[in-house]
Amino acid sequence: MGNCCERAGNFFGPQNNTYIRVSLPAVCFVWQIAMVILFGVFIRYDEESDEKGWHEFKKSHNITSNIENDFYFRYPSFQDVHVMIFVGFGFLMTFLKRYSFGGVGFNFLIAAFGLQWALLMQGWFHSLDPVTGKITIGIESLINADFCCAGSLIAYGALLGKVSPVQLMIVTLFGVTLFAVEEYIILDLFHCRDAGGSMVIHTFGGYYGLAISWVLYRPNLNLSKRLNGSVYHSDLFAMIGALFLWMFWPSFNSAITNHGAGQHRTVINTYLSLAACVLTTFAISSMGQKKGKLDMVHIQNASLAAGVAMGTSAEFMITPYGSIIVGFCCGIISTFGYLYVTPFLEKRLKLQDTCGIHNLHAVPGMLGGFVGAIVAAAATEEVYGKEGLVETFGLSGKFENRSMSTQGAYQAAGTCVAIAFGLVGGVCVGFILRFPLWGDPADDFCFDDEAYWELPEDEETIPPVLEYNNHMINKHQDTHESQFSLEES
Amino acid sequence: MGNCCERAGNFFGPQNNTYIRVSLPAVCFVWQIAMVILFGVFIRYDEESDEKGWHEFKKSHNITSNIENDFYFRYPSFQDVHVMIFVGFGFLMTFLKRYSFGGVGFNFLIAAFGLQWALLMQGWFHSLDPVTGKITIGIESLINADFCCAGSLIAYGALLGKVSPVQLMIVTLFGVTLFAVEEYIILDLFHCRDAGGSMVIHTFGGYYGLAISWVLYRPNLNLSKRLNGSVYHSDLFAMIGALFLWMFWPSFNSAITNHGAGQHRTVINTYLSLAACVLTTFAISSMGQKKGKLDMVHIQNASLAAGVAMGTSAEFMITPYGSIIVGFCCGIISTFGYLYVTPFLEKRLKLQDTCGIHNLHAVPGMLGGFVGAIVAAAATEEVYGKEGLVETFGLSGKFENRSMSTQGAYQAAGTCVAIAFGLVGGVCVGFILRFPLWGDPADDFCFDDEAYWELPEDEETIPPVLEYNNHMINKHQDTHESQFSLEES
Amino acid sequence: MGNCCERAGNFFGPQNNTYIRVSLPAVCFVWQIAMVILFGVFIRYDEESDEKGWHEFKKSHNITSNIENDFYFRYPSFQDVHVMIFVGFGFLMTFLKRYSFGGVGFNFLIAAFGLQWALLMQGWFHSLDPVTGKITIGIESLINADFCCAGSLIAYGALLGKVSPVQLMIVTLFGVTLFAVEEYIILDLFHCRDAGGSMVIHTFGGYYGLAISWVLYRPNLNLSKRLNGSVYHSDLFAMIGALFLWMFWPSFNSAITNHGAGQHRTVINTYLSLAACVLTTFAISSMGQKKGKLDMVHIQNASLAAGVAMGTSAEFMITPYGSIIVGFCCGIISTFGYLYVTPFLEKRLKLQDTCGIHNLHAVPGMLGGFVGAIVAAAATEEVYGKEGLVETFGLSGKFENRSMSTQGAYQAAGTCVAIAFGLVGGVCVGFILRFPLWGDPADDFCFDDEAYWELPEDEETIPPVLEYNNHMINKHQDTHESQFSLEES
Repeated sequence: MGNCCERAGNFFGPQNNTYIRVSLPAVCFVWQIAMVILFGVFIRYDEESDEKGWHEFKKSHNITSNIENDFYFRYPSFQDVHVMIFVGFGFLMTFLKRYSFGGVGFNFLIAAFGLQWALLMQGWFHSLDPVTGKITIGIESLINADFCCAGSLIAYGALLGKVSPVQLMIVTLFGVTLFAVEEYIILDLFHCRDAGGSMVIHTFGGYYGLAISWVLYRPNLNLSKRLNGSVYHSDLFAMIGALFLWMFWPSFNSAITNHGAGQHRTVINTYLSLAACVLTTFAISSMGQKKGKLDMVHIQNASLAAGVAMGTSAEFMITPYGSIIVGFCCGIISTFGYLYVTPFLEKRLKLQDTCGIHNLHAVPGMLGGFVGAIVAAAATEEVYGKEGLVETFGLSGKFENRSMSTQGAYQAAGTCVAIAFGLVGGVCVGFILRFPLWGDPADDFCFDDEAYWELPEDEETIPPVLEYNNHMINKHQDTHESQFSLEES
Repeated sequence: MGNCCERAGNFFGPQNNTYIRVSLPAVCFVWQIAMVILFGVFIRYDEESDEKGWHEFKKSHNITSNIENDFYFRYPSFQDVHVMIFVGFGFLMTFLKRYSFGGVGFNFLIAAFGLQWALLMQGWFHSLDPVTGKITIGIESLINADFCCAGSLIAYGALLGKVSPVQLMIVTLFGVTLFAVEEYIILDLFHCRDAGGSMVIHTFGGYYGLAISWVLYRPNLNLSKRLNGSVYHSDLFAMIGALFLWMFWPSFNSAITNHGAGQHRTVINTYLSLAACVLTTFAISSMGQKKGKLDMVHIQNASLAAGVAMGTSAEFMITPYGSIIVGFCCGIISTFGYLYVTPFLEKRLKLQDTCGIHNLHAVPGMLGGFVGAIVAAAATEEVYGKEGLVETFGLSGKFENRSMSTQGAYQAAGTCVAIAFGLVGGVCVGFILRFPLWGDPADDFCFDDEAYWELPEDEETIPPVLEYNNHMINKHQDTHESQFSLEES
Repeated sequence: MGNCCERAGNFFGPQNNTYIRVSLPAVCFVWQIAMVILFGVFIRYDEESDEKGWHEFKKSHNITSNIENDFYFRYPSFQDVHVMIFVGFGFLMTFLKRYSFGGVGFNFLIAAFGLQWALLMQGWFHSLDPVTGKITIGIESLINADFCCAGSLIAYGALLGKVSPVQLMIVTLFGVTLFAVEEYIILDLFHCRDAGGSMVIHTFGGYYGLAISWVLYRPNLNLSKRLNGSVYHSDLFAMIGALFLWMFWPSFNSAITNHGAGQHRTVINTYLSLAACVLTTFAISSMGQKKGKLDMVHIQNASLAAGVAMGTSAEFMITPYGSIIVGFCCGIISTFGYLYVTPFLEKRLKLQDTCGIHNLHAVPGMLGGFVGAIVAAAATEEVYGKEGLVETFGLSGKFENRSMSTQGAYQAAGTCVAIAFGLVGGVCVGFILRFPLWGDPADDFCFDDEAYWELPEDEETIPPVLEYNNHMINKHQDTHESQFSLEES
């Protein structure tokens, strides 16, 4: 305990490895300057956001009304996705009693960096004009950039409280890069459909984070155990994040699906699936405790699993009851995961997963990939109509003659690619993060905002003058001794 | 006090009636499985969300652009309504110092169940295809399902802290059922207009909750008095809910009004009315206290009353100043209600109304119904135009020759139907809830999340290691004794 | 300390100047009644929200679909702006440990009043029909009214915790009035473009607030120093506000820009600029502290500066990398401002700026005005297209022959007008506020919700019965004495 007291007095004795005054600004400046240069060289407005281009586009496409601009089809969904990325993911990670600043703050930092890098990476892979050498961006690019960040934010969930912001920047740099490559393979080469990203976002992000966490295993993490839990109000902050994720997931899955019936149906499917998931989550959460009490961790997380699992199939004709069945199963599986799998992984596989992304992203994402494969394989012209089948699965050009069972097989293969990229990429990045120069906290200093944030005074409540004066008096005494003397008196 | 101390040591001596480990999962599973089956039998995509259907619809209606899909008219409003239901209602009910988990969590549970049941009930009554025997759903159905839940969530406001989640599921099951029936009578048989639900949602939900609460009167509720109040930060959480309700109420009232000028005007009217309501709420709140201080309860609740009261008339040509006058009056009436009527109801009528839904929903909803009746009766072709009058009031088919004064009379009658359904239905459901097997808390265990939730440790702040160690030392002593010895020393 | 103790016992000895039971209701009622009358005389629906008008408009403009109603172009942005005004600004100001009710509550009050007054003032200046003498309003008017409030809410940021609600109503009354006049000069007479209000909103609002605060300088404000800071959870509440502002700023800047490519491009530019700003904010925040720790004040505020600075130029063809450069610089400038300029202003210029609006609004707004001037002056037909140039800068009618360099000069002049209006108007209003009858708190009673709000009990956590009983016992003793005796024992 002597050691502990010392730390209470001087935080920067043994812990000065969390000193990031050089590394964090260096990384931020270098990368942001790189962004300026690369955007200058590569990024331009697309024809629907360019002033001249849009006027020409309207003429060439015989469009009379500005409402035909893709902006009006996608902007409401984009803003919902944006809320999910920054408030949803951010506040979901505020549940720890003393890592709420880090949860929402670092999420903010890495998402803001990641989306810029994503515009470039996704641009190079998907929309580089071979003639001009430029990438053109519009509202759909912004949505895709937000999606691409999500992969790295999911990985952050496994690492929460155990890494430095510099490490997170590295996780994001590689995460976005890997994402763009696997997305290219899955969506372009395999020609899979994955509008809500069960495979490319959640499966990849989940396994990416788990692999990193596995490499960064801390055998003495229980030294920080006192801070690895919530308090009453931190759970409420996390509930803000959870609810915004839950409510806006229909927008997430429908944001880049086909105009018209495509977006419409995706919303309905996701909405129903999420509702069903809530009920089974509550049921299993109550059954899982001796006293039958509900656990906020499950409510905040497992109730979202259906949104993850519908990421691929929500745009298909999965039918309303099909959606409900998926949600039904996901609530059960995910809550079981929180109850039994996460503790098992930690004990047996040396895998510390702070937020339980295994149960919220990795497994439901994988399931979603396979559900998507099955629904795709089962698609018929009778149900979709000839035109609809071609549009929904993009079966034109060189994919014109692909059969639905082939499509299903590719969808399943895509899921495996996402897992592989997550695991292999995560292990590699994990080893990079083990270099001892990134400022990560010691084992007894995890889950503590003290490491990276100027914290306000400790008191939660500063009642009127009287107690403040008492407080100042106490400060002049040796607080430590006076408290113990109380016990002894 | 001996009894109390015993409870502090063993929560499951006398309180084991809050044991829900069997009943809650049972209800959740049975009802969710029922949903799967009923959705399988009855629910299909409508022609604007079905892949094949939409292609055919476009051809048959000569539509060239996907932007004509109803989705794009309604989706932004739908998402706002969704936020109101889950974050708005949910966080508004977090104001109690130790029932915030229950407030937002059970709201989540019952809304997620209610919306599924609502799709079925409303479908059977409003959109069952007599040929195929199927209900087809689209974005408007989702909005209506959210609306339908709102009735039961309002009722929860009166019961907050005094019922078990199982009881709430029953309240919702019957609430949604009753809602669908009264809605059928008011909107279909009486052919009333009630886009924002002054009558069908707020009046019904308000009186439904009050009637249940009246049947469940607890004479010894003051045993839980210490927890029936807010703390500083719980009031801020509630303010999140209140503001999202306030801001998005224009979307609530306009979500299912007519395309074009209908939605446009509804937004303007609701926006103005709510703004006016805020000023009179602040005024009366300050006047109502001896020291002139403002009360957060009023600000959180009474400022919303205008949204409730504009639910029927916002889509009519009530004029901007008419809207402001309605808001002006509602702020006064609702704040007076919180100051004087709620205490009166509790003392004299044995009616315990935790959130004061009498003042926020029941009375403003009823007023809104009658305001709507008057504005409808006053409608003229001069103001609406011939086409506009027919469209606004749906005066086609067998209602072609209905005069505006008749319409007004039906609107007024509709309000009475809503009150009657609320009161009678609420009393019946209240008696069902009195069976002693639903796990509701004892009188001295109300307003306490301890009953149904795994709670984190008590400390709000866990400052560095030193105090944690002190805490562990204390734990090994008999906390009770040591604390008293402090007083005596 | 004797004085302090007295206050703890009797808050209404020396502090009864915060008594607002007469003045606040009086102001609210008088002004709201004035609103009813003025709206009755002046305000009508415009042709897109009027039932009859829209039917006629569709016929006369050959519009076949309701989706062409301006409502569908602007409503999603409007709701985002609405969230920024009430939750964004409101919760950003909850960061003080004991002024969160005042931050979000008074923001609510003055915005609700301000928007009504803004509809009238802006109507008189911009859209009064000379024939009928009426102002017609639609969705764009609501957005403009929200914008107009923003000017006064920004000013509130400088005054937070030091003024009474009555004073704030006066600040808003004059603020909205001044806003409408300077807006008329800048947008109508000078014919500047300023869709996101770098000049008319932020520069004006910033300097308006600073000038008021300068006149209201309190030499003894350090008597309230103990409350002029945050606690852990109040910083998280403020983060809710900050994030909603950050996320929805693209909607703020694009809400009233041209349909089609105009809104589309504005969103892209603002999104990119804000992302870049976050990285430089984190970098400078870390560099600015000896230990390299991050400061929540910077993260909450400086990361928003890019949105302010893009207010004018975001709708122009500033290019994506141009947007990033602006964001890059703003993060640096604004964070430096918080680190060095605000303390300097307080010490040397006697300028107490609670929220640091100098760094978030005044300076970035001014910069944004000049950036807009440069980008406008550099606009060419080659980049915008002939049609595009005319549309983007509104160069029709009597401005048909204005050259782009003239346009740039007018934009720069507009910025100066905004500064002048802010400073001169602020000084005048400041002197009005110094009359000793508005109920502002004494120097040792600032930043304290106790002055104007009924506060709940002090305890943040009310653990089970046992401690509550202890608490009741303590209450019967003289708390003051018993606490000191503990220290002495």
